[in-house]
Amino acid sequence: MSDQLPNWNDCAAKSAILDFVARVTNENGPDFVPPTERIATFDNDGTLWCEQPLQVQFFFGRERLRIAAEKDPTLKERQPFKAFLEHDMETIKSLGMEGFFEVAAFAHAGMTEDAFIEVARQWLATARHPKLGCLFKELTYLPQIELLRFLRANGFKTFIVSGGGIDLIRTLAEEAYGIPPEQVIGSSVRTRFEIREGRSELVKLAAIDTFDDRNVKPQNIGLHIGRRPIIAFGNSDGDLAMLRYVRTGRGPRMALLLHHDDEAREFAYDRNFQVSPLADALDKADQYGLTVVSMKRDWRAIFEASTRPAAALAGKAG
Amino acid sequence: MSDQLPNWNDCAAKSAILDFVARVTNENGPDFVPPTERIATFDNDGTLWCEQPLQVQFFFGRERLRIAAEKDPTLKERQPFKAFLEHDMETIKSLGMEGFFEVAAFAHAGMTEDAFIEVARQWLATARHPKLGCLFKELTYLPQIELLRFLRANGFKTFIVSGGGIDLIRTLAEEAYGIPPEQVIGSSVRTRFEIREGRSELVKLAAIDTFDDRNVKPQNIGLHIGRRPIIAFGNSDGDLAMLRYVRTGRGPRMALLLHHDDEAREFAYDRNFQVSPLADALDKADQYGLTVVSMKRDWRAIFEASTRPAAALAGKAG
Repeated sequence: MSDQLPNWNDCAAKSAILDFVARVTNENGPDFVPPTERIATFDNDGTLWCEQPLQVQFFFGRERLRIAAEKDPTLKERQPFKAFLEHDMETIKSLGMEGFFEVAAFAHAGMTEDAFIEVARQWLATARHPKLGCLFKELTYLPQIELLRFLRANGFKTFIVSGGGIDLIRTLAEEAYGIPPEQVIGSSVRTRFEIREGRSELVKLAAIDTFDDRNVKPQNIGLHIGRRPIIAFGNSDGDLAMLRYVRTGRGPRMALLLHHDDEAREFAYDRNFQVSPLADALDKADQYGLTVVSMKRDWRAIFEASTRPAAALAGKAG
Repeated sequence: MSDQLPNWNDCAAKSAILDFVARVTNENGPDFVPPTERIATFDNDGTLWCEQPLQVQFFFGRERLRIAAEKDPTLKERQPFKAFLEHDMETIKSLGMEGFFEVAAFAHAGMTEDAFIEVARQWLATARHPKLGCLFKELTYLPQIELLRFLRANGFKTFIVSGGGIDLIRTLAEEAYGIPPEQVIGSSVRTRFEIREGRSELVKLAAIDTFDDRNVKPQNIGLHIGRRPIIAFGNSDGDLAMLRYVRTGRGPRMALLLHHDDEAREFAYDRNFQVSPLADALDKADQYGLTVVSMKRDWRAIFEASTRPAAALAGKAG
């Protein structure tokens, strides 16, 4: 059989993945799982694509806030908007992911869902990483794209469960990961249903509906999926509840934790990352039965060789 | 081509469905819709299965309440529980669907999601309709099962969007309709994530998260699906917002409204049904571009001939 995970090195993590998938798809084995129950959930930021120096949604939210501040200049003097508009990174980082999301929600309030999708799509088509120069959408991890494809080829349904804004990820996930909008779960705002010029619309409000992090991740899996996944993959303590929820289910279960330990080819960080740290999950990985994946040791390539991040990050190291 | 909707009579509604599906699947035509955007949403109670004299969830909720009242006899003296336990139908009907759901939510509070699924599965396997004598799960409409299958054969993804409790429908939908849990949207309660004896669990709370009716249906479609469906099917004013949301989207869209006008083979009701009436949607069907389906005129059979409802209801008419 040809190697379906060519950008995973021959390592314990890869063996564990191949072994798990072989067991759950073996109709005559004791660990067989019917295709309809083969659910896999992946975090997005830092698990499927790069989240350094900040999650991509931050750059999108700041752009939208800049436009909002043209209409309402008082935003330039009010926190936390002021910090975002002035690139005050210390203040921004101290707000954390939930703070980002609240600012973004404020900046999008009053837009219809359809208009938001259009704006997000246009932004993602051309927006570039401020330091690496590549398109944000080129920052997806090649070994993970392979893994998602490998799981689907084995009857899995793949989902994203992200702390990021659900609508922004949905505009990207189908093209980038092969994951349709209805298989994306994320943070969301409330909407109002209204008729505008004879057309029914969903209008985004500034009120948070759900901030999809920590315990809320399994809760939203319950709401959106309605059964316990058999594979989960994350990279921070914000994913730990989801990883434990999946790992402690009955029958064969696998929970994977990506460790960003590759300063040369990407970034090296864990408990020091202010926005979304990794500490507890790493310290207790053995106790909780998590399979730790080292980017440095376990991944042959990180990005598509033909795209800019590989070159830019190699340059960074050189 | 063989008739894939054999239990639909040759009528305007059937022609409209066949024509619509032919147009959106014709790659060279002006109305082509890529498979990934072929989303169809169906109401459940009264659209996919019988809701008379009351929705099936009522009987399940009452059974759970009876068990709760064994532990806490004070429920027998408190409204609205008293009305449910004493089969006081007038009071029960006056509470409406939301009232049912609140009582059911109270009765299930403290159960884990996994335990709930197990209890619901066991109940549905044997629970019978009090008047018709058949299993509740035999009350699904044969022409709708054919339609769901026909849509999926043409690349559609089929969803349920119901005012009923999401978890109860999920235990039934895969077997009854070929719709997996993650494609069921419904009313839901909040959950608490907790660790019980080393195992992570979602515990159901008595607090309503969403009551999925009227304007909330399109709002929940936005949350769960993230794009506007191209077909929707409902049977009451509670579905009107969803039908209009779908019908007013750009490009080819179809919205269908089932009219229960078959006293002989099922039931005849619309604006007189206290729990979930049909009036506004019927009166304005033309104005809103809704395709009205008459059970009497448009459906050859209503239930599987081999199951009890057909015989029981034929007996009722005779």
